[in-house]
Amino acid sequence: MKKSIVITINRQYGSGGHLIGKKVAEKLGIPFYDKELLTLAASESGFAKETFEHNDEHVRLSTSYLSAIGVILGSPTANLVDLSLNDQLQMIQSKVIEEIANKGSCVIVGRCADYVLRDRENLLSIYIHADDEDRTLRIVNEYQACSEEEAEAMIKKMDKQRSNYYNFYSNQKWNSAKTYDLTLNSSYFGIEGCVDLICEVAKRKSV
Amino acid sequence: MKKSIVITINRQYGSGGHLIGKKVAEKLGIPFYDKELLTLAASESGFAKETFEHNDEHVRLSTSYLSAIGVILGSPTANLVDLSLNDQLQMIQSKVIEEIANKGSCVIVGRCADYVLRDRENLLSIYIHADDEDRTLRIVNEYQACSEEEAEAMIKKMDKQRSNYYNFYSNQKWNSAKTYDLTLNSSYFGIEGCVDLICEVAKRKSV
Repeated sequence: MKKSIVITINRQYGSGGHLIGKKVAEKLGIPFYDKELLTLAASESGFAKETFEHNDEHVRLSTSYLSAIGVILGSPTANLVDLSLNDQLQMIQSKVIEEIANKGSCVIVGRCADYVLRDRENLLSIYIHADDEDRTLRIVNEYQACSEEEAEAMIKKMDKQRSNYYNFYSNQKWNSAKTYDLTLNSSYFGIEGCVDLICEVAKRKSV
Repeated sequence: MKKSIVITINRQYGSGGHLIGKKVAEKLGIPFYDKELLTLAASESGFAKETFEHNDEHVRLSTSYLSAIGVILGSPTANLVDLSLNDQLQMIQSKVIEEIANKGSCVIVGRCADYVLRDRENLLSIYIHADDEDRTLRIVNEYQACSEEEAEAMIKKMDKQRSNYYNFYSNQKWNSAKTYDLTLNSSYFGIEGCVDLICEVAKRKSV
């Protein structure tokens, strides 16, 4: 690819979005970041990796966040004391996301990366979803050993958590088509079909 | 194309969805239906074409619709007297949409066609949206001579009208990513980029 491209992927729980992102990165030969972001964020801050993991894609409301984020992002020495723990972790992650994107092409999953990078011309923002039955089966068979009922409950919980987190820190709607350049139903396209389509779009955009 | 494919397109006002659908149909050499549906619906019913045009993609609530639709769709001789005019027109259009899809590959714009045909294996449901500035410019420059302020007001009015209509007659969310197999931002892909991508997907699905 001649020009760099930053591909961000938001995903319904159980839709295969993580796997699709990983395969896209492998196929394009570019770095992939999902949980890897937490390790980087931990190494750049005074917080333990476990703190990032425990609070990953969570939000606990803090009125000071929205007014502070403009100041903080422009000033690495700004004081974080008045912000909630989640706000602080999100801002550290946002800085890491900016740094990663500055280095060149990559795939980033979740963590409002599309919103953090929204002003970049080389951004391709994607959302992956799937039919409920497929999501349930994927969770039961691939993610962990649990019953279908437990998988359905996890889908509701995780979607709500990701939606609340995204809507709060992005000021956009997580599940709205217009938030993204491209959304795909992985039940329709299949995992490999999604990977092929995203790679084709990325290649066209980066020539 | 070996297997038939029915492509439905919902679209934000001013997103270029109509033009994209028309070009896709031309490129694939298959029939295209947008306002053409109204002519067909008029010729199959006792209503004038102007009646369909005047009420196109409108909804006026009628509690009898949802309970009646199952009966009516299965029985062409059922009594329509208790339903609102919009409900009757929608049901006539739904029948026409089924008949069109039975004939083979085609592109259908709007009018809940994706919901009417939701159980068909050969359905590809698409939603086209665009950035607000591009929509305003398209309306000012291509759709009709009006000011930017008037175009912005029309965007709000038409999106609300289409959303209300779709959400009522489909029981799904018009602007939600998960309603569709594929959603595209025409500001990102361009009109020709959307056409190429949709045609590629259609060709892969119909071999």
